[in-house]
Amino acid sequence: MVQTMNNTYFGSVNKVAYEGKESKNPLAFKYYNHEEVIGGKTMKDILRFSVAYWHTFTADGSDPFGAATMERPWNHFTGMDLAKARVEASFELFEKLGVPFFAFHDRDVAPEGLTLSETNKNLDIIVEMIKDYMKTSNTKLLWNTANMFTNPRFVHGAATSCNADVFAYAAAQVKKGLETAKLLGAENYVFWGGREGYETLLNTDLKLELDNLARFMHMAVDYAKEIGYTGQFLIEPKPKEPTTHQYDTDAATTIAFLRQYGLEDYFKLNLEANHATLAGHTFEHELRVARTSGLLGSVDANQGNPLLGWDTDEFPTDLYSTTLAMYEILQNGGLGRGGLNFDAKVRRTSFEAEDLVHAHVAGMDAFARGLKVAHKLIEDRAFENVIAERYSSFTKGIGLDIVQGRANFHTLETYALNNDTIKNVSGKTERLKALLNQYLLEV
Amino acid sequence: MVQTMNNTYFGSVNKVAYEGKESKNPLAFKYYNHEEVIGGKTMKDILRFSVAYWHTFTADGSDPFGAATMERPWNHFTGMDLAKARVEASFELFEKLGVPFFAFHDRDVAPEGLTLSETNKNLDIIVEMIKDYMKTSNTKLLWNTANMFTNPRFVHGAATSCNADVFAYAAAQVKKGLETAKLLGAENYVFWGGREGYETLLNTDLKLELDNLARFMHMAVDYAKEIGYTGQFLIEPKPKEPTTHQYDTDAATTIAFLRQYGLEDYFKLNLEANHATLAGHTFEHELRVARTSGLLGSVDANQGNPLLGWDTDEFPTDLYSTTLAMYEILQNGGLGRGGLNFDAKVRRTSFEAEDLVHAHVAGMDAFARGLKVAHKLIEDRAFENVIAERYSSFTKGIGLDIVQGRANFHTLETYALNNDTIKNVSGKTERLKALLNQYLLEV
Amino acid sequence: MVQTMNNTYFGSVNKVAYEGKESKNPLAFKYYNHEEVIGGKTMKDILRFSVAYWHTFTADGSDPFGAATMERPWNHFTGMDLAKARVEASFELFEKLGVPFFAFHDRDVAPEGLTLSETNKNLDIIVEMIKDYMKTSNTKLLWNTANMFTNPRFVHGAATSCNADVFAYAAAQVKKGLETAKLLGAENYVFWGGREGYETLLNTDLKLELDNLARFMHMAVDYAKEIGYTGQFLIEPKPKEPTTHQYDTDAATTIAFLRQYGLEDYFKLNLEANHATLAGHTFEHELRVARTSGLLGSVDANQGNPLLGWDTDEFPTDLYSTTLAMYEILQNGGLGRGGLNFDAKVRRTSFEAEDLVHAHVAGMDAFARGLKVAHKLIEDRAFENVIAERYSSFTKGIGLDIVQGRANFHTLETYALNNDTIKNVSGKTERLKALLNQYLLEV
Amino acid sequence: MVQTMNNTYFGSVNKVAYEGKESKNPLAFKYYNHEEVIGGKTMKDILRFSVAYWHTFTADGSDPFGAATMERPWNHFTGMDLAKARVEASFELFEKLGVPFFAFHDRDVAPEGLTLSETNKNLDIIVEMIKDYMKTSNTKLLWNTANMFTNPRFVHGAATSCNADVFAYAAAQVKKGLETAKLLGAENYVFWGGREGYETLLNTDLKLELDNLARFMHMAVDYAKEIGYTGQFLIEPKPKEPTTHQYDTDAATTIAFLRQYGLEDYFKLNLEANHATLAGHTFEHELRVARTSGLLGSVDANQGNPLLGWDTDEFPTDLYSTTLAMYEILQNGGLGRGGLNFDAKVRRTSFEAEDLVHAHVAGMDAFARGLKVAHKLIEDRAFENVIAERYSSFTKGIGLDIVQGRANFHTLETYALNNDTIKNVSGKTERLKALLNQYLLEV
Repeated sequence: MVQTMNNTYFGSVNKVAYEGKESKNPLAFKYYNHEEVIGGKTMKDILRFSVAYWHTFTADGSDPFGAATMERPWNHFTGMDLAKARVEASFELFEKLGVPFFAFHDRDVAPEGLTLSETNKNLDIIVEMIKDYMKTSNTKLLWNTANMFTNPRFVHGAATSCNADVFAYAAAQVKKGLETAKLLGAENYVFWGGREGYETLLNTDLKLELDNLARFMHMAVDYAKEIGYTGQFLIEPKPKEPTTHQYDTDAATTIAFLRQYGLEDYFKLNLEANHATLAGHTFEHELRVARTSGLLGSVDANQGNPLLGWDTDEFPTDLYSTTLAMYEILQNGGLGRGGLNFDAKVRRTSFEAEDLVHAHVAGMDAFARGLKVAHKLIEDRAFENVIAERYSSFTKGIGLDIVQGRANFHTLETYALNNDTIKNVSGKTERLKALLNQYLLEV
Repeated sequence: MVQTMNNTYFGSVNKVAYEGKESKNPLAFKYYNHEEVIGGKTMKDILRFSVAYWHTFTADGSDPFGAATMERPWNHFTGMDLAKARVEASFELFEKLGVPFFAFHDRDVAPEGLTLSETNKNLDIIVEMIKDYMKTSNTKLLWNTANMFTNPRFVHGAATSCNADVFAYAAAQVKKGLETAKLLGAENYVFWGGREGYETLLNTDLKLELDNLARFMHMAVDYAKEIGYTGQFLIEPKPKEPTTHQYDTDAATTIAFLRQYGLEDYFKLNLEANHATLAGHTFEHELRVARTSGLLGSVDANQGNPLLGWDTDEFPTDLYSTTLAMYEILQNGGLGRGGLNFDAKVRRTSFEAEDLVHAHVAGMDAFARGLKVAHKLIEDRAFENVIAERYSSFTKGIGLDIVQGRANFHTLETYALNNDTIKNVSGKTERLKALLNQYLLEV
Repeated sequence: MVQTMNNTYFGSVNKVAYEGKESKNPLAFKYYNHEEVIGGKTMKDILRFSVAYWHTFTADGSDPFGAATMERPWNHFTGMDLAKARVEASFELFEKLGVPFFAFHDRDVAPEGLTLSETNKNLDIIVEMIKDYMKTSNTKLLWNTANMFTNPRFVHGAATSCNADVFAYAAAQVKKGLETAKLLGAENYVFWGGREGYETLLNTDLKLELDNLARFMHMAVDYAKEIGYTGQFLIEPKPKEPTTHQYDTDAATTIAFLRQYGLEDYFKLNLEANHATLAGHTFEHELRVARTSGLLGSVDANQGNPLLGWDTDEFPTDLYSTTLAMYEILQNGGLGRGGLNFDAKVRRTSFEAEDLVHAHVAGMDAFARGLKVAHKLIEDRAFENVIAERYSSFTKGIGLDIVQGRANFHTLETYALNNDTIKNVSGKTERLKALLNQYLLEV
Repeated sequence: MVQTMNNTYFGSVNKVAYEGKESKNPLAFKYYNHEEVIGGKTMKDILRFSVAYWHTFTADGSDPFGAATMERPWNHFTGMDLAKARVEASFELFEKLGVPFFAFHDRDVAPEGLTLSETNKNLDIIVEMIKDYMKTSNTKLLWNTANMFTNPRFVHGAATSCNADVFAYAAAQVKKGLETAKLLGAENYVFWGGREGYETLLNTDLKLELDNLARFMHMAVDYAKEIGYTGQFLIEPKPKEPTTHQYDTDAATTIAFLRQYGLEDYFKLNLEANHATLAGHTFEHELRVARTSGLLGSVDANQGNPLLGWDTDEFPTDLYSTTLAMYEILQNGGLGRGGLNFDAKVRRTSFEAEDLVHAHVAGMDAFARGLKVAHKLIEDRAFENVIAERYSSFTKGIGLDIVQGRANFHTLETYALNNDTIKNVSGKTERLKALLNQYLLEV
């Protein structure tokens, strides 16, 4: 049995504090101040940061070419003792960082047993322990989810497996996950289809797999209603990796799926920056697509390397990306029950425990600055005024006819035949990019 | 006025003939034989090849770093004479290749005038000339479309322009296009949103642009009904280029758009191989997505270079791609009113007129071989039997319960708790790829 | 004949001034102040900005899908009058921006005639006019080069053409270019092999083409010596576009070429940010590779879009890129005779003349800020101290033996067999990225 | 202790035989016939196939998102017994496939001990066992190498580590590797710099790392001479993964490195298809670059997925790639001491032992067909005649002057001024691609 050893895992770190720009302390925030009010709400309430349990407490630094590197104070434990030590360490870090949320997969927190029953028992023990910790912690559960991609049984997928036994197993796992969500008061429940895709079309019944995926989602919706779990359901797109093609490719594709199967009233999107990169989109594009469809639910706050073709899950430090993400989020009126979950891992070469603190500080600071810049941009209507002027032709005359449904091809042709000189105006991209730089630097 | 000078444009080329494998004549088909019957239909009726007017008769070989290179027998003409010479040359080539279809944009066939009225008059003259040629030709119009991306008025888009005057102009242009389609009996009318996208989100009202795009499409549907044009409406996805982001990104995105705006009953998709590549998909994936949604309409038959990031629009010669494309098309029961349009251009370095013949022969042969291989694969159920076996667990027991809607999280959990040993079977990708090679080589 | 009409082309723009952060004037610099001293030298002397004649005065905004959009006050001129008007406009803009340099291709400044002789005469007239303007201007010629990719004669390359007549023509063109360089006192002469590559290996004698390229370069070196032109020779890598593969792929490849053919003493590299992106590298990587080889010559200051696969040649506004570029340049002791040439074009949608000013201000400001941040980073040894500590094991003991050549596999094995516990230290990537953000924002 | 249990690992597989096209046996070769003579040599002698020990006997199917899936008959063994069982299984498979070569890393064949001494002892035992098996086997060692990327000690690289202790350890490991190579008669010794690169330039001394890499290579050369190991040294390029940037990026970069440090007389290149894809090149391009530099040593025969950004290491089945690779190899006069090593792994979803056989059959058949097609193409001079004609201007007149060094800028300008009409000829890419298809299908 693990002894309670609070404060021993990150012993070198006192509470990370807001010390301001002049501080030389690398373990202090420079920009993040959780009580600072921006537009009427505190930074903490707007940003709703969340620590990802898997990357921070479970991941070991292994990659396809290398073994574990992570030096963790809990590495000497094994089995359930290891699981318990991680819970202790996690709440210690949550408190020191002052983050309001965390998120986990079932298999991050508790090891699998030999049978599903045993696995569930392991999970029960740890969930109970988490629940205890949550009683005295300020950190809540942003979301939980089911890992249905690591175990070899999911080699061909989970809800889209060619094997009905696997579908059944996955159903049992999500059932338990929803019960866990209710028990711990999770704000959301997330679906990321880690292997819901295909290796090759040569052996794939794409239609049946998509139909089954939708059946699975509907069963989840039904079961949540049955048990009275009222958190938000989220689906997280990713285009590829680990499979060659994944069904929930990007925001638009996932919205198409939800609409095709009548699921759009029950789900919103959990969008990740790095997944956008892999799909060939900017992060802000994915957020905009979801926002304008009313389906922006939550965010996996990380960043990819555009020159690398895999999911690097870096901690977010690119201020352009954090600014433009916060711009979309503020325009969305915030994330509601969602949050900014650091689905990010320290580099394999950043293997010391303290790197976990540096990385979270880096990410929180980057988003804090992004929030401030985005808020000022919106407050000044720096871009909004440009856009309003740019589309002003749709607020009067023939443009107003168009948007109000009074125009047709006859009226428009008549108009065009009498309007031979069309005057366009520059889009001023370079000026707007310079303006963004000025806001970024001067806020 | 142009004189009729039939057979002078491709004078060195007699009718391209099927001479069989032993022929050393590079201007003969090796695999394509238009009267050969495959599965009850002739190759010609299945493949429904179409020549793209723009690449073959209008394009000049210029690129962002270079001027025109194409040596064309009609290069000495100008203005309307040039337009007429191209019509003559086109029907000569159609006949020599024996292709059943062609396709054009309005601005490919006739030059713009100083006003829209004058432009329409130019178009009327050429369309009348085309109509005359079609009376005695075996080549029909697969589709026509409107070029709403070349003229600087479309610098910010057409139906998604920020300028209502441009929307009106585009409406007038498509109105004329639908009238042309009806006049020439076009099997389809195509929308490719060349600049329907954005340069930067910083100056873009994405929601208004998408709403306007849908308004435009509905007006087109209404007008086609009004004039009794009964061809199929097609929308062609492309993810980027010329704009940074284009709204009709890929098949799934375009389906999402059609469903969001209630357009799915009026449109199908025109899918291009190279656009799939740019979107990070295989061509067969895009075809499968459209097919399983009942929205596979037509195909732009070309290929991209996966190592280059722009639309190279190469003539299709990759036999894997043509085989897997024909596999999807045959599984779709053919393309209906659609066809295989060579939206492909000879390389800038292939600037001699005879290269146009070589290129079409290369493409037609590649698809003819692909058709034969795909037909045999389906006839033998080479992959279909593998797939049926692979998903057989959904035809009985708990799997059947799932697909027939009798299962829920309770019954599935009970099943899973009593089914601790799950046995998966290899997906056999390598074996299937070797099998594909055998069919490719041995048919 | 063109009349001198100074100040009419950019009439709305007075001299762009340094007004500081509080200015609301979008035509003022916020960060660039040419007389500001950084580390003992003025910004102007360090940054050595250059305007690219082709993008700014010749380019028309056309792209593969669209016609010219650029609204230029000199658009109503044609032929040699147009060429002269551009010269006037260029020196007006140089003065208003206060840039110390410009750069041009031969065919940017003067139109081709019907023969090479006539072309050379056209060039002579314009070069003479430029020389006159330079007498009273503060703007000098950073480099000139030969456009050997636009004219159809270069369809198969120039020095690597399969056609010896083209090689000869290219030689004559570069001969003239070197004479021009001498006449105008160009600091450098640049070679960018626009079509020095291949479309397909199926028809390519790669070895002969590379040998010929080297022969061409040696002839250029010989001729420069002969006429006493003492500027620096530069070669500019790019991996692809317009050709499928280009020989001068990236910095390392180009260095390999120079070394293989004994040219490394005569050439340095002209590195472009967007070309680095297309090659899968960061800009700073390319700069570092050239710097550590002693071959960093000059810079084409622009940026690409990592999500697009072609050369977008955007004006540089990414502060991370400008900072890390300036970091390498400062570590190099500056660029010597080289400079920062804005090989960048306003977007096709930014078609108003004033956009040219906005774009240059955006780029100059971005590099000015980058310079200040990089200078402070180096002054504080923010990264250099980390690196010194990180590699300190090579300054003593076995590490020193290694770098001083005293170790071999015997001594190292003996050491290793007696050193079973190896202790590595975290690379601290996340901490360093946060530090970079702090410098970026606080300088 | 493992008992010798020959024939039990792949018990269901008899010797893979050449049964010809009509055979329905999926475990028979369709195209590969090891005694078939092509151009005077047997297929076996030309193709020199090699099985990669790591992918076939050691890899477990895990990926960044999933645990081991591979069902192997030796999975129940552990430690040294597992190592021995794998040796047994390997020679069984070598014999059944009839492959002449295999290849391994030190850590594939024997587990690491707690100390380097213990590790070496483990290796000695297994190498001795392999040596015994080789006495009665027809399968020889194509190459061995050192795994200096998996163990966490190599987290920052091996020869390019920032830690001198790691450099020393790596030296000891390669020393042992060279001794192993000599003992087992390895035809080659390979260096793949798995982590010889960087995570970020912010903490990297690139120059010292490259210098150290060269020092390491020179020590290896010296030691091989000392012990009389006469195999060929090979260096294997890869641009990225696992590190963000790897020094031996591609063929050209690696050649630059070899030349810079005076190593080009001691090393050739081991080129991998998938690494070419990751570097943005075709496989045949990399082979051509090495061939024309006289540095083509050996081949890692696999293929990547151009739509995925990581090293998928698929078994080679693309007949275009195998044909064009064999074309380069035949033009090189074969691979000398090198071979075609299947650095390829069955998909994670192909987890049954029999998939290993299917995969090797697929790869060997694909290369056998590629060999035949390439041989016929060369025999017929299908492309070579086109190329000879295309460059014929360099065999006479001014072209001959150029290649023979008699031309200079003066003579060339004079020629060009008198040669105003340049006539180029089409490159005929489309015709050549159709021709390639005909050879592929008809050989």
